[in-house]
Amino acid sequence: MDYIIGMDIGTTASKGVLYRGNGKKIEELSIPYPLIQEQVDQAEEDPQVIFNAVQKIIFDLSKRVAGKIKAISWSSQMHSLIGIGKDNRVLTNSITWADNRSSQLVAQAKENGLAQDIYQQTGMPPHPMAPVYKLLWIKEENPKLFAQVQKWIGIKEYIIWRLTGTIVTDTTMAAGTGLLNLHTLTWDRKLLDKIELDPEKLPNLAKPEYVVGKVEAEYVQKLGLNSETKIILGASDGYLSTIGVGVLDKKYFALNVGTSGAVRAIAPKAIVDSKNRFFCYPVDKSHYLLGGPVNNGGIVFEWARKTIFGPDQTAEDFINVAETVPAGSNGLIFHPYLGGERAPIWNAQARGSFIGLSRNHTKPQMARSVLEGIVFNLLGAARGLREKIGEPEALRVTGGFVRSDFVRQLIADIFNLPVVVIKNDQSGTLAAMFLAQLGLNEEDSLDKIVKEIDDSKVYFPNQKNVQVYQDIIPIYREVEHDLDQSYDKIAQFQKKYPKLFE
Amino acid sequence: MDYIIGMDIGTTASKGVLYRGNGKKIEELSIPYPLIQEQVDQAEEDPQVIFNAVQKIIFDLSKRVAGKIKAISWSSQMHSLIGIGKDNRVLTNSITWADNRSSQLVAQAKENGLAQDIYQQTGMPPHPMAPVYKLLWIKEENPKLFAQVQKWIGIKEYIIWRLTGTIVTDTTMAAGTGLLNLHTLTWDRKLLDKIELDPEKLPNLAKPEYVVGKVEAEYVQKLGLNSETKIILGASDGYLSTIGVGVLDKKYFALNVGTSGAVRAIAPKAIVDSKNRFFCYPVDKSHYLLGGPVNNGGIVFEWARKTIFGPDQTAEDFINVAETVPAGSNGLIFHPYLGGERAPIWNAQARGSFIGLSRNHTKPQMARSVLEGIVFNLLGAARGLREKIGEPEALRVTGGFVRSDFVRQLIADIFNLPVVVIKNDQSGTLAAMFLAQLGLNEEDSLDKIVKEIDDSKVYFPNQKNVQVYQDIIPIYREVEHDLDQSYDKIAQFQKKYPKLFE
Repeated sequence: MDYIIGMDIGTTASKGVLYRGNGKKIEELSIPYPLIQEQVDQAEEDPQVIFNAVQKIIFDLSKRVAGKIKAISWSSQMHSLIGIGKDNRVLTNSITWADNRSSQLVAQAKENGLAQDIYQQTGMPPHPMAPVYKLLWIKEENPKLFAQVQKWIGIKEYIIWRLTGTIVTDTTMAAGTGLLNLHTLTWDRKLLDKIELDPEKLPNLAKPEYVVGKVEAEYVQKLGLNSETKIILGASDGYLSTIGVGVLDKKYFALNVGTSGAVRAIAPKAIVDSKNRFFCYPVDKSHYLLGGPVNNGGIVFEWARKTIFGPDQTAEDFINVAETVPAGSNGLIFHPYLGGERAPIWNAQARGSFIGLSRNHTKPQMARSVLEGIVFNLLGAARGLREKIGEPEALRVTGGFVRSDFVRQLIADIFNLPVVVIKNDQSGTLAAMFLAQLGLNEEDSLDKIVKEIDDSKVYFPNQKNVQVYQDIIPIYREVEHDLDQSYDKIAQFQKKYPKLFE
Repeated sequence: MDYIIGMDIGTTASKGVLYRGNGKKIEELSIPYPLIQEQVDQAEEDPQVIFNAVQKIIFDLSKRVAGKIKAISWSSQMHSLIGIGKDNRVLTNSITWADNRSSQLVAQAKENGLAQDIYQQTGMPPHPMAPVYKLLWIKEENPKLFAQVQKWIGIKEYIIWRLTGTIVTDTTMAAGTGLLNLHTLTWDRKLLDKIELDPEKLPNLAKPEYVVGKVEAEYVQKLGLNSETKIILGASDGYLSTIGVGVLDKKYFALNVGTSGAVRAIAPKAIVDSKNRFFCYPVDKSHYLLGGPVNNGGIVFEWARKTIFGPDQTAEDFINVAETVPAGSNGLIFHPYLGGERAPIWNAQARGSFIGLSRNHTKPQMARSVLEGIVFNLLGAARGLREKIGEPEALRVTGGFVRSDFVRQLIADIFNLPVVVIKNDQSGTLAAMFLAQLGLNEEDSLDKIVKEIDDSKVYFPNQKNVQVYQDIIPIYREVEHDLDQSYDKIAQFQKKYPKLFE
């Protein structure tokens, strides 16, 4: 009975990792599922489909060790919303963070000041990803449904409820709703009154390491577990992937760039920003997760590889060509906002641009400028954190985008900070497993997590390149400001002629 | 004795066309020569080398008809400057329109108001191409040379001087110096005083059809001409290529787009613009050539073909791909200012940009947006003319960029005007030949030139596309305005790190 499963409920797939009691990984398994996108801006998932994937993973991992699982702990996507009605009927799909149907309501809330209040009280920047705006949207679009729902929960709460019969959420997931008061760490009564939501309709709150209880008999049997297997509450993937790379305090920032990206830090107190640049999600009263989520990471690199080069060129080819050009891409600037942007500009209408072309610029400069632009934007997302928390000693980086030496050095040069590469790609499930050890009183602090992390490689800034970047970055920012209104008009044009895109 | 040679002294080559007395073309011949670019911003030519090319062309064409040449008439590149000293010594190369060494002086003149005075009095927009600014530059850089020169002339004056011994210029060429008063059609005394230039140092003025005289005996023999061959003064290529496509009054605008481009019109009076957007060069007191020269024509198309596609793709491939995308390129905007720009923005620091990229944009949208951007810029260059002269009935278009049906239709849709394609690519020499017939009293008006022009093909605007363009063009202009300051900073960055371009 010496094994722990760390589960990660992602947006495109769920992953389970089987750990030995000493923390060593034995096996992992991943099962994908589809997004439901039948209307413009919709992005939902079927919670039963996700639960099926989770069951299959647990069953297969448990079978591997004859059911000797002492605990299952959870890392989860944030910002999802599911409505549960009378008699435990599930009334909605899981509306994910990628759903943009409340955009209009966010715009209104920005206008009338509600968005600013929400940010100041809950640390949630104005964005349609947040359940608080989704609830406003449902209330307006479908008031009958709004009234029928007895509990509003997220996907992690749904899965744990199915396994244990208990509806409970942890502080880090609750923070992702935009309804949790930053200072009291309870549901914000004033805000709930404002949106006319009964606090009884929200789950109870507990710490991430809370032991929810045992798995219900039905699932003990079905999943090949044993009657003592405990369910640990777990936490958000944003928090766990941060502590999972060893960022436990303000000494380091965590930078993760896969398809999208995020920069995150842990502050000892609640910090909000007059410009709404970063989120501030409480963990407990002395740990707050601050950060900026960025839409345009590896997905932009992938677009550029196909568009500037072609389907036959690899990411490696792209980087080899980019490397032939000096820092600053001969004054060619790239805005990576192909998918609008969250941090640092929080503008869904933003678009991408190449700016500053001369006849000397050809594919190599375009390639390098794309990589630089992606990193300039990440730097922007980190700027508010550096101003408010102070300079970190280094960045701890993970994700598919940072696989090459070239990109790692680029980050070091643009951030003017040492870059520590973290090899462990299980940071979320590893940290979830640690929560289980805490919950089961096998550990008394998260500090030991650092021992499990392989951070052998460090990249130091090249001061010659740092100088070039410090000359061009202010121009990048200025162009961002220049084009703010025009991006809006271009987005309107693109909406006016949507058929043109078919 | 029934033949006329129309000569065109271009920047990269001279061309001669042999015409029968009735105006039919018999043969043409072209000889290239190099630009001298030994310093940054320098662009000179050796006048002797050009004279050698001209001699070779005349000799070969004359030989073809046993020397029976009754006249040689001239079309010429504008804005060149050559200094002649004592004893007819040639003291400088021909400093061409492409020479930018007086940029600083132009900037100063804009600051202190001189540039605005020059434009208002002479119709010459502030630009280093103009001999008036080159003279200011020489006076500052090399005052000894400035004092030594006895006559300042251009390349056409030099060639005709060599052949006839007479130094004389025509109104259209004189207009290109920025020293000819728009209203009096004489050298502007106030301006000459201001730059301390003795009017005796400038050539006498005459009409384009003026018969300069006979060829000197030395060259009659050397070039295989006969003792009666007359030299007709001729005119600027800008003027002749305009009347040479049948644009004799404000009914039509001429649009020529090769490597670079220009839009031109003939107005019945001098018209200048408070924003300096177009030049206004007198022909006579009831004909003024108005227009805007544009740097970024086919040269940008060529850049995009190589950069977005590759060396193996042809211009036709590029257009075929662009054609698959609807008007407006799905909201992707391209600024064609790869080489800075003259009309309509007169900003040498401007740069190129793709603006408005989303993940749905790939090569086809980039290709179409490049073509649209080149034409949006030409539209901008025509805007001042349309405002001041009134709407033309149609555009008469020529040049390598307008060879495809697709680009011709694009111009019709973006300008919202019918586009008449002129097949004759000899428009400059044909019009020069007509000047000879006028000078020799064989014709009494230029109107008959229209009969020689093949204008069989007309493209009418597609109103559906017109609507799309009228929605996106204001955004194109707004972005131009947005980026004005930033382009400047990017240009400074590129100058700060010039080695990066090696």
